[in-house]
Amino acid sequence: MSSLAETSPLAVARTVQALRETVQGWRKAGERVGFVPTMGALHEGHLSLVRLAREQADRVVASVFVNPKQFAPTEDLDRYPRQEAEDARLLASAGCDLLFAPGPEAIYPPGFSTAITVAGVSDDLEGAFRPQMFGGVATVVAKLLIQAAPDVAVFGEKDYQQLLVIKRLVADLDLPVRIVPGPTVREDDGLALSSRNAYLTPEQRMIAGRLNLALADAARRARKGEPVAVIEKDTVAEIGEAGFDSVDYVAIRDAEDLAPFVGAVNGPARVLAAARIGATRLIDNLPI
Amino acid sequence: MSSLAETSPLAVARTVQALRETVQGWRKAGERVGFVPTMGALHEGHLSLVRLAREQADRVVASVFVNPKQFAPTEDLDRYPRQEAEDARLLASAGCDLLFAPGPEAIYPPGFSTAITVAGVSDDLEGAFRPQMFGGVATVVAKLLIQAAPDVAVFGEKDYQQLLVIKRLVADLDLPVRIVPGPTVREDDGLALSSRNAYLTPEQRMIAGRLNLALADAARRARKGEPVAVIEKDTVAEIGEAGFDSVDYVAIRDAEDLAPFVGAVNGPARVLAAARIGATRLIDNLPI
Repeated sequence: MSSLAETSPLAVARTVQALRETVQGWRKAGERVGFVPTMGALHEGHLSLVRLAREQADRVVASVFVNPKQFAPTEDLDRYPRQEAEDARLLASAGCDLLFAPGPEAIYPPGFSTAITVAGVSDDLEGAFRPQMFGGVATVVAKLLIQAAPDVAVFGEKDYQQLLVIKRLVADLDLPVRIVPGPTVREDDGLALSSRNAYLTPEQRMIAGRLNLALADAARRARKGEPVAVIEKDTVAEIGEAGFDSVDYVAIRDAEDLAPFVGAVNGPARVLAAARIGATRLIDNLPI
Repeated sequence: MSSLAETSPLAVARTVQALRETVQGWRKAGERVGFVPTMGALHEGHLSLVRLAREQADRVVASVFVNPKQFAPTEDLDRYPRQEAEDARLLASAGCDLLFAPGPEAIYPPGFSTAITVAGVSDDLEGAFRPQMFGGVATVVAKLLIQAAPDVAVFGEKDYQQLLVIKRLVADLDLPVRIVPGPTVREDDGLALSSRNAYLTPEQRMIAGRLNLALADAARRARKGEPVAVIEKDTVAEIGEAGFDSVDYVAIRDAEDLAPFVGAVNGPARVLAAARIGATRLIDNLPI
């Protein structure tokens, strides 16, 4: 155990009841509570969200829960990286006050039968390629927000469509929490930090760094008023030429509701992409 | 205006914000909050739920919202009775402290996209005949419970399957509220009080009173150990002979999860039925 962990031991709640007792104690003391839900395998991107939550609240809870409902049977649930002791050490170093790390049976006990879906903003892009994902995300995020009852919750812009789904979910269910977006943290070559980057071989890692450069090109061209359809087509080709094995989509969309543009961009926009290297699927996005 | 209404004026909240301000004020004063959601057109059945909430809490909020999401296009949304002034007077007389009466746009603002479904206990019986209903109920009840954030909420046993759906929903989403069932209130001939009884002609009203008697017969036979399938078939016939135009179902089921029995009843059970007189559909149920 590092000396850091010894000087910053992190309390861990395994049950909803334990989580609520701690949060209610803080609230009774007049403290504001921030929340950062994660699937663990933490990196600097997650820690930046914890620090952002810390700026907005007196106390920060982070959850680590690899949510089976947002993985398809063919996806990487079993090999998704799990490293709780290391995660706890990193969270403590970033100023987190409590780790909520429930087992699957604490979140989905026997007989669990409820599903939450968000139509519209979920349907396209990631929703088209991973049809089960946003339903799983909406269900678990609603549960986590109801369980933790934070004042603010921070979600990374790295998963931009997910951020919009969660904003819609929170508005639609009147959950009394403010959603704060956290900027994407990147490596020196611009690769967005992701727990899935750990799957990449050194050669794949070189290729992966080209994704954000292609999106930056696309954003530049969109700002100049080039037709969206042309930019998207060229960017798919550019990502392929960079060495990716396939491109699921490149899309330039309205930044608020992901509606497509006809012709050129004419309002706040975002360029989003998903592409695969070997068995690893990477996503990224940039503002326009 | 009656003298009762004058001496017990009832505060009305039209927005979620107004509702929350009042409830939070009570909570800060250390008061426990009870909640009774309704679709209005209140009768003694609803008022018994308000009184039950009053026994369990210091303050009672009742909502009146005719939820469009739980009506199919062919159903009686437009003609469902609406009588807010009378409802407010009745609620005040039963000890209600606040009426939450939002317009449809306060519950489903433009862009609303979220749906909540509860599988299993929703699928059969009412769920088979009104496929849209329990999704609409689950969505609006989750919203109302999140909005009002009560300590206890009371739901009538008259809508027994709905009560089970809501118990499942609350458990699955970890909503911090205790669900209390309220016994069905009946007329002298045993007809369960229902806002839809107002649709009945005097002749239909006579026929309607036979439904609960048929269910009482069924319950008696089930307790004696007769085969469930035989009782159900006989009871359908008995309701038809009483003058109902059609019977959607008669079902003897497990009282907790509505699972069917093979052979005779062998645990806590309930007999449930739905039948139609003219354009009016009535439901009822009894413990076995």
